[in-house]
Amino acid sequence: MSFPVGLARVLEPAGVLPQAAWRLDARPEIGADEVRIRLERLNLDAASFRQLSGKHGGDGAAVRAEVLEIIGTRGKMHNPVTGSGGMLIGVVDEVGPRSPLPVKGGDRVATLVSLTLTPLAVTDGLAGWDGRSEQVPAAGHAILFGRSVVAVLPDDLAPELALAVFDVCGAPALTDRVVRGHAAAGPVSVAVLGGAGKSGSLALTAARLAGARTVGVVVSDAERDALQAAGLADDVAVADARDPLAVSSAVVAALGAPATVTVVCVDVPGCEHGAILATAAGGTVVFFSMATSFPAAALGAEGLAADVTMLIGNGYVPGHAAFALDVVRRTPAVRALFEARIAAH
Amino acid sequence: MSFPVGLARVLEPAGVLPQAAWRLDARPEIGADEVRIRLERLNLDAASFRQLSGKHGGDGAAVRAEVLEIIGTRGKMHNPVTGSGGMLIGVVDEVGPRSPLPVKGGDRVATLVSLTLTPLAVTDGLAGWDGRSEQVPAAGHAILFGRSVVAVLPDDLAPELALAVFDVCGAPALTDRVVRGHAAAGPVSVAVLGGAGKSGSLALTAARLAGARTVGVVVSDAERDALQAAGLADDVAVADARDPLAVSSAVVAALGAPATVTVVCVDVPGCEHGAILATAAGGTVVFFSMATSFPAAALGAEGLAADVTMLIGNGYVPGHAAFALDVVRRTPAVRALFEARIAAH
Repeated sequence: MSFPVGLARVLEPAGVLPQAAWRLDARPEIGADEVRIRLERLNLDAASFRQLSGKHGGDGAAVRAEVLEIIGTRGKMHNPVTGSGGMLIGVVDEVGPRSPLPVKGGDRVATLVSLTLTPLAVTDGLAGWDGRSEQVPAAGHAILFGRSVVAVLPDDLAPELALAVFDVCGAPALTDRVVRGHAAAGPVSVAVLGGAGKSGSLALTAARLAGARTVGVVVSDAERDALQAAGLADDVAVADARDPLAVSSAVVAALGAPATVTVVCVDVPGCEHGAILATAAGGTVVFFSMATSFPAAALGAEGLAADVTMLIGNGYVPGHAAFALDVVRRTPAVRALFEARIAAH
Repeated sequence: MSFPVGLARVLEPAGVLPQAAWRLDARPEIGADEVRIRLERLNLDAASFRQLSGKHGGDGAAVRAEVLEIIGTRGKMHNPVTGSGGMLIGVVDEVGPRSPLPVKGGDRVATLVSLTLTPLAVTDGLAGWDGRSEQVPAAGHAILFGRSVVAVLPDDLAPELALAVFDVCGAPALTDRVVRGHAAAGPVSVAVLGGAGKSGSLALTAARLAGARTVGVVVSDAERDALQAAGLADDVAVADARDPLAVSSAVVAALGAPATVTVVCVDVPGCEHGAILATAAGGTVVFFSMATSFPAAALGAEGLAADVTMLIGNGYVPGHAAFALDVVRRTPAVRALFEARIAAH
């Protein structure tokens, strides 16, 4: 049995998968089942960019230098502190004769696998980037394996918009699946912690499109006002997601009871217990934040005697890219939120 | 809305739940919904004991001193490195007038919530413990909250056996639930990584009792021989759970295809990718190991384009203690494995 997952690109340590590797081989020559992409833009993971920007006090040149150093050293954009990467946009340059991916030379595509496992080389020193935004214009190349996920960019949406949507497209697809899984047992209510963010606003919208009653939990009055104005949730509540009692009280006040499904889209540590306490017995918590602590979630549910199913938010659901684009097309307010976010950068 | 989860016992930081607290108030006087237990024995979490024993090079006196220091400083047995605790056995000493727990004074009980959130005081310096075993004879007291989980010890099983079973009783109950959830779609196969251990052998047995075909994956020939002799799994394979290709190849060789359900019971880091790669599309991975990395699982599944549901193993499933004891009573070979483990300590 063979797994077309890029083992030939792992330089060290030997025998691990590309994501676990310290260093990948980013040579431009492709294998028979590989695809080479000509880079146009990287989209750094939010947690990674925040860590780098915070470390350097917002000094864009220093952030750029560290990103270049990471890529040069590791052969991939894999932030060693946060463990996260991001994604990229580019044009298909060459397709190996045995690649199973549905792309051809000249297609403009976005990769939907993490930069933490994508061989990457930059040739322009990221000269077109000021180091102050997650969106990074770049020249160079990247390599896709047989078992990669890639989407051709749509004609009707700006590439920046499509890329921002693809970056979080697992959230609406998995939220939809979980809500529909609970719907057979009765009405479903959904609380989204971090409902004003990218993945949060898509999860809220997908939940409502699947028939759920929704509440968005946000951290500030400004986010509340924006989310209420957009009309994406049935209710909006303000609470610090790290405060278990504040979160659970806010959700119960909005829904009249704990939520059937709670979706965590807040990229800060310490949100596990509030999510668990805000969820009804027999319900499901979906953790999408990379800041989630596995032991805090496991021991927290046990300690609270909480019979809840806890999902590690898998960024891959078949058809997730098309699903997310469809959510955006059907919901002008979500599209407007994404476009405002992009314009603000 | 009030949550009977022990907030009054949190000393610092204020406003967090007991498990997240650095320090709890372990005073013996109980509140109206609390219960005080007279200690007989602590059962340290395996990862915690291994860390402490490793740190002190197996020096039992040093391990004992550090456990005493942790309990004295934090008011609970919460290993600050592993984040894990364990459980305890004792006798109900006093029951508050508003406690909802189904116990009375004089009941011999085991707590099924983690020691990481249980107020605890030791009065004998753990003089009866040599620091070389997870099972710690102890005098002192512990406090249970309204929303705790506690089981009265059965008459027909030794307390040490019941305690060892209770410690991992979430694994068989959740495995049973997940296997039955998949059974509607056809035959279910289950791979258990770490199948020779406590939670692993119970998960294997529960999976088979629920009708699944099973393979136990173990790390050594000695474990393979023991598991084969016990006859708890349909197949036994030897592979390092940290080696994704070795694990997935071993599972496919045993089952003829990837597993419908993979259960991770190996308490070492780095088992996420092997579990994902060993699981069929549409299947489920259940992570019971506290060494699981949330980002490694989430990004790994995405990077492998793996459509698998990933569960954070919740230690609480209603009825889990009785379920686990029933599995042990019905399966003499599991009982023998547990008794041999206890005797070896």
